[in-house]
Amino acid sequence: LPAEAGPDDVVIGSGDDAAILRPPAGHDLVATTDAFVEGRHYAPAWFEAREIGARLAIANLSDFAAMAARPRWALLSIGARGEHELDALVALQDGLAEALAAEGASVVGGNLAAVDGAEWLSLTLLGETPHGRGWTRSGARAGDLLAVTGAPGRAGAGCLLARRLGAEAGATAWRPLLDAWIRPSSRVKLALALRSSDAVTAAIDVSDGFGGDLAHLCEASGLGAEIVEASWPADPLLERAAEKLDVGLEVLRFGPSDDYELILAVDPRRRAACEETARASGVSLAIVGHFTDAPGALTLVTTDGGRRALPSGGFDHFALS
Amino acid sequence: LPAEAGPDDVVIGSGDDAAILRPPAGHDLVATTDAFVEGRHYAPAWFEAREIGARLAIANLSDFAAMAARPRWALLSIGARGEHELDALVALQDGLAEALAAEGASVVGGNLAAVDGAEWLSLTLLGETPHGRGWTRSGARAGDLLAVTGAPGRAGAGCLLARRLGAEAGATAWRPLLDAWIRPSSRVKLALALRSSDAVTAAIDVSDGFGGDLAHLCEASGLGAEIVEASWPADPLLERAAEKLDVGLEVLRFGPSDDYELILAVDPRRRAACEETARASGVSLAIVGHFTDAPGALTLVTTDGGRRALPSGGFDHFALS
Repeated sequence: LPAEAGPDDVVIGSGDDAAILRPPAGHDLVATTDAFVEGRHYAPAWFEAREIGARLAIANLSDFAAMAARPRWALLSIGARGEHELDALVALQDGLAEALAAEGASVVGGNLAAVDGAEWLSLTLLGETPHGRGWTRSGARAGDLLAVTGAPGRAGAGCLLARRLGAEAGATAWRPLLDAWIRPSSRVKLALALRSSDAVTAAIDVSDGFGGDLAHLCEASGLGAEIVEASWPADPLLERAAEKLDVGLEVLRFGPSDDYELILAVDPRRRAACEETARASGVSLAIVGHFTDAPGALTLVTTDGGRRALPSGGFDHFALS
Repeated sequence: LPAEAGPDDVVIGSGDDAAILRPPAGHDLVATTDAFVEGRHYAPAWFEAREIGARLAIANLSDFAAMAARPRWALLSIGARGEHELDALVALQDGLAEALAAEGASVVGGNLAAVDGAEWLSLTLLGETPHGRGWTRSGARAGDLLAVTGAPGRAGAGCLLARRLGAEAGATAWRPLLDAWIRPSSRVKLALALRSSDAVTAAIDVSDGFGGDLAHLCEASGLGAEIVEASWPADPLLERAAEKLDVGLEVLRFGPSDDYELILAVDPRRRAACEETARASGVSLAIVGHFTDAPGALTLVTTDGGRRALPSGGFDHFALS
């Protein structure tokens, strides 16, 4: 097919052997890939087709938020059963395209393969960042503040409620937790706004769980971290879920949960700018601790003044099925 | 993890939330994605792990050859069973990395997901082409010569022999056909050399089959084509395979076969330069016909002077299992 009509930066879109794209001068290219497998990363009983596509987009956009990079182009690779209804595939792609479009990105290529068993989706997201301006996991310094967006743990709690309670989890009361799991938000706009504030020294997104992802950031930066329980965002609904599920609140807060929120290392001299930018972006952001020069030590300072190791443990894709 | 040691164009490699890459100034970005599903795109009984990885690399490199683009970076997304031996996964990635490295590309990111059923691999290949110098499918003109590299049909014949004859297909006599299927070649070097000759007006790679892919190119260019049977590269082994399999030689030549060879539209004034470049690259190239102004009409001119529709039919991923 001839080149599609599209933004000026899409020289050749879908329909030829490859897409040809034109990043602006002075920018680096940013690339990430993430995949969802039916029954593992999404549960057909709980997800509309549009939501599956949108969530995969958010998972990839979340990596861009963690790099403070601007998403532009995506390539979608699908493994679908032959009997999959075309309408449902189209809805899935629509949901994905809409979530990407909300951040200025579009699908420029893809591949459709037939499978017999579980379906899967693999998205590669491309974009740009001005030379040398992308965030990494390795730039945090001892003394930097530790900030987190939103309320990590909600997505994992929603997933666990659905798994344990079945249809009962659909009750209105639990809806905000289920929504955190099924319809997460993109933090790209916040990240791009924060990039301009020069407040952030390192970042990672919460795709495994707060404890696991914080450990990754600390490892890359050669640091430790202290989390102050009293500073953690209050979340009465998460507390009720912990009771209902009979698990510790800390397990929900810090354990496996793909919230697609951000963990940020913040220059303490720029704390105010950081908080003001988050407010202006309409995203809740809490300073929950700080980084230390004790590599690998993740400590929780409890409300009674006690200190112990942060309950951690990332999301093990091979362990959970 | 901190940025990997790597070429200057890999600013941040694997280990952060996304890769950061730096294409040279004045170049467009080229991106393609292709996936293999176990049992459909590769048969574990016939493929070493290294060969599966290498073949997926070639499938993507082939799209780059068809665009005359230089491959640089790749992101590999894998769906593997939990009990998959790590050694075999490493061998697969090594085979893929080696095939990419032979063309100057390297893996800069990826994702590993767990699956219960058939395994799959999805590769996204990124690279570059000088502004406006990439080939497309749509640039052919009536009167352009139609060239093809190698001997299309061999890969499909090899696959069919393995499926029909089982272990017997492993006999030395059939090995060149099985190799065309299991260990295809990259045509990237030839394409980059031909780009400099300015001889090629449009291109597509043979990933479905000669007839099906030629139809795609003709559709994109709004043309038809005539294939002269007498000009088609002689292939006694393919003839023997047709007899053994009891299928028409034309079915093997023009039907489903993912040879990863190139179909090229060649400016007739530059035929000699084109042929000389192929010779210098050590790749056989045959002028097998020309393009016509009869949109969609693909005609075979037989050795007895007869004319009939080219037996066609692309590779239907949903039909073949």
